[in-house]
Amino acid sequence: MLLLNLDREGRTPLWRQVVEGVQRLVEDGTLAPTTRLPPTRVLADRLAVNRSTVLRAYQELWALGYLESRPGSYSTIRRRMRPAGAPLEATGSALDWERLAAPAANLVFADLRRFSAAEPSPGAVDFSGLAADRSLAPVEEFRRAVNAVLREEGRRLLDYGSPAGLQPLRDAVAWRLRTHGVAVTGDEVMITCGAQHGLDLILRLLAPAGSTVVVERPTYSAAIPLLGLHGATVVEVPMKADGMDLDILEQELDRRRPALVYTVPTFHNPTGITTSQVHRERLLALAERHGFPIVEDGFEEEMKYFGRLVLPIKSMDTSGAVVYLGTFSKVLFPGLRVGWIAAPQDCIARLTAINRFAALSSPPLAQAVLARLCRESRFEAHLRRVHTAYRKRMAVLLRCLREHLDGQRVGWTQPCGGYTLWVTVRGCPVAEAELLARLRSHGVLAAPGSTFFASPDAGVHFRLSISNLDEPAIESGIARLGRALTEVLS
Amino acid sequence: MLLLNLDREGRTPLWRQVVEGVQRLVEDGTLAPTTRLPPTRVLADRLAVNRSTVLRAYQELWALGYLESRPGSYSTIRRRMRPAGAPLEATGSALDWERLAAPAANLVFADLRRFSAAEPSPGAVDFSGLAADRSLAPVEEFRRAVNAVLREEGRRLLDYGSPAGLQPLRDAVAWRLRTHGVAVTGDEVMITCGAQHGLDLILRLLAPAGSTVVVERPTYSAAIPLLGLHGATVVEVPMKADGMDLDILEQELDRRRPALVYTVPTFHNPTGITTSQVHRERLLALAERHGFPIVEDGFEEEMKYFGRLVLPIKSMDTSGAVVYLGTFSKVLFPGLRVGWIAAPQDCIARLTAINRFAALSSPPLAQAVLARLCRESRFEAHLRRVHTAYRKRMAVLLRCLREHLDGQRVGWTQPCGGYTLWVTVRGCPVAEAELLARLRSHGVLAAPGSTFFASPDAGVHFRLSISNLDEPAIESGIARLGRALTEVLS
Repeated sequence: MLLLNLDREGRTPLWRQVVEGVQRLVEDGTLAPTTRLPPTRVLADRLAVNRSTVLRAYQELWALGYLESRPGSYSTIRRRMRPAGAPLEATGSALDWERLAAPAANLVFADLRRFSAAEPSPGAVDFSGLAADRSLAPVEEFRRAVNAVLREEGRRLLDYGSPAGLQPLRDAVAWRLRTHGVAVTGDEVMITCGAQHGLDLILRLLAPAGSTVVVERPTYSAAIPLLGLHGATVVEVPMKADGMDLDILEQELDRRRPALVYTVPTFHNPTGITTSQVHRERLLALAERHGFPIVEDGFEEEMKYFGRLVLPIKSMDTSGAVVYLGTFSKVLFPGLRVGWIAAPQDCIARLTAINRFAALSSPPLAQAVLARLCRESRFEAHLRRVHTAYRKRMAVLLRCLREHLDGQRVGWTQPCGGYTLWVTVRGCPVAEAELLARLRSHGVLAAPGSTFFASPDAGVHFRLSISNLDEPAIESGIARLGRALTEVLS
Repeated sequence: MLLLNLDREGRTPLWRQVVEGVQRLVEDGTLAPTTRLPPTRVLADRLAVNRSTVLRAYQELWALGYLESRPGSYSTIRRRMRPAGAPLEATGSALDWERLAAPAANLVFADLRRFSAAEPSPGAVDFSGLAADRSLAPVEEFRRAVNAVLREEGRRLLDYGSPAGLQPLRDAVAWRLRTHGVAVTGDEVMITCGAQHGLDLILRLLAPAGSTVVVERPTYSAAIPLLGLHGATVVEVPMKADGMDLDILEQELDRRRPALVYTVPTFHNPTGITTSQVHRERLLALAERHGFPIVEDGFEEEMKYFGRLVLPIKSMDTSGAVVYLGTFSKVLFPGLRVGWIAAPQDCIARLTAINRFAALSSPPLAQAVLARLCRESRFEAHLRRVHTAYRKRMAVLLRCLREHLDGQRVGWTQPCGGYTLWVTVRGCPVAEAELLARLRSHGVLAAPGSTFFASPDAGVHFRLSISNLDEPAIESGIARLGRALTEVLS
């Protein structure tokens, strides 16, 4: 006999009250395992509710593990180890995950807090982010291309793909690289889930724990925790006006051969510096002489605005020493997570094996859509549109900096492309955190310089990015920045 | 003065001949760097070709790095380190990638060859694969859902997402897990790029190189190279009729605490075995007593066909010792690469940090589509369809095995769900490779048993999967299998 009090005036639905009533009776021991429940029709009559109410309650109790399901027979109470009483409150854990976690994983977990987005600041002009401008994304073209590829070969594209990527996209990327002077075939290209995933695969291949990895100082901020995750020893070589100081690199090379040198030679993140042809040739010659791979991050290769063309280091790479990283994220859709690696086939084959067992394959559908957009020259047309937009923004940024900043006390780089530049406040009377708080109080946000260094730096710097701001926003933001810096420096 | 001989009758387009001619003149030193090329109009006149032919050639030469581009001025020859002469042949590398590669990466590279697909065998019935049946995939429903989410929030979904996954999908997965008695919230769920990626993240968190990881023997084959990639010491605990031998596990636990125990308790891959409630409770009690996490791979949770319901180990997990792995690949679209991890928040937070720096985020678009399919109950309806189809197939497989195989000499498991079963040939007179070749000569393919063991096994086994075969194919395949085995064993 099932005794349940139902509150017919209450806000809890009747079926839910039946569920909770039975749960209570099981947990206080009134209903023992193997006890038969009344048939739904019988209980419905007894409680004066619809039979569907009881049916729904029994289904929920079954789903929660309180009932054995015997099709066409009675339902019986099931012995259940865990009361499923509070399913909507996250529970704790008796295991200590910090103690169980690998040391490198705990390090990265600590880094995540450092990288978490700043508090929102309504009305502020935000120069801190580097995501591509959503408003420029050709969503309708993407939607049409998705429909086309799904209609043509949807079944194939929703099945597993090759861990090296979809061949038509590998070929399309190789073709695009040729327009930058990089002569590779589709078989020397591997598709990744974004450039970050590409760098992760490269580190898995080349940098077992304890390896030395050389980076620029400052460098791409999210590379630093990733290197930490791999247990790499990071050697930072300072940036000069023409990139990584190669004299210092040579001294380092005399001591030991690094597992690899990671470099962003074009529109360097964060400084915006593009290295000269001479610098590129000397770095490549060092790699060939000492036998280490260069990982060339060409994440913004397409975004050249001013001045003389410089081709990727990879375009001169006759010895196969350069592993080139690229992405569609910065000019098309960051959220598709499609990037690539171009490298000698021996290297690509090993990276593919790692991806095969770490992820089985990358999603083929997004790759097919991008291959189609490339083939139809829609990618080219889109590139021209965003190139024009970003070039104007960078020109406005540089003009406003000249107008509003005191060139004596504040220095900034002169990028010839990309989205970022680097500001250094000479003899800054306040520390970085205080400076950024003062900028925020003037309604302007910048990326803190310290996140781009693996070890602390004595200077005060910040990065400005134009990727997500239109021209009026840049004008007003830099005017605010000028007022803030004048206040701080006066 | 540019001397070029053009072959007007040949198959090479004229613009291409101009490109190749200039390349030759640069590489033999005739055209030195900084040499001015004639204006396109002048050269076109001189060669008696269209101006567009010369324009196209100059563009290609610029793209290949042979020309400086001076808008509105002359083009000059550029000094280029690497001749881009043979761009369509993959080149070798002076670096020795095998020597540069981490030892674990080379191991995985060797494994890849072992895992490469068998040679095609036209007309054979292929029981070896475990991919979901493409013909069952609801491609049209997917296409409509993609269109809907792109129209509603395309810009947001093509931008970066959270490294923990899209909240609506996390909530939908939590809701689905509740129907299996697992009481978790969306915050205890993380979305991954498939279950394999989930296992990779878990190993990165819990198993630094040198850790001991316990697996079933046999186990999911692609877990073995992944464990090798992480440098784990693999301890295999033999499978009995009711799963991993827990007496042997207890002996192992007395020696040392493993970093984790990886188990597939439901429709185990490869054997098809589902463990009993008693086995699950004892394994969980061991984890709680010894303080190690259980990684429960529930990749086929939905595919129960016959017999009594058993809920996941995670459904009893009051102590937060179980990390649950799930996937949409086996019942929906393998190529979307969407899986999940359900675990205590302390664990999810650390896994999210690793994903944040190893991949930035998982693609939000596919997640939004799946969340929508779940919300509209289309996923439920699809599950019912495929469940019916696969249940019939498994019933046919079991019937045909009884009809065609000699139960004295050949043993097989009796799965109550999933796609696979495990055949053992007792006292097999030939080795595995020979046996599989004989099956192939009879037009039937199976997955070699040896791939499911981390260390060699004395027995001869193979796995049969029904995931990609309809009922007539299963009937005819098992008849062939029976004839092949009779021949081998006679």
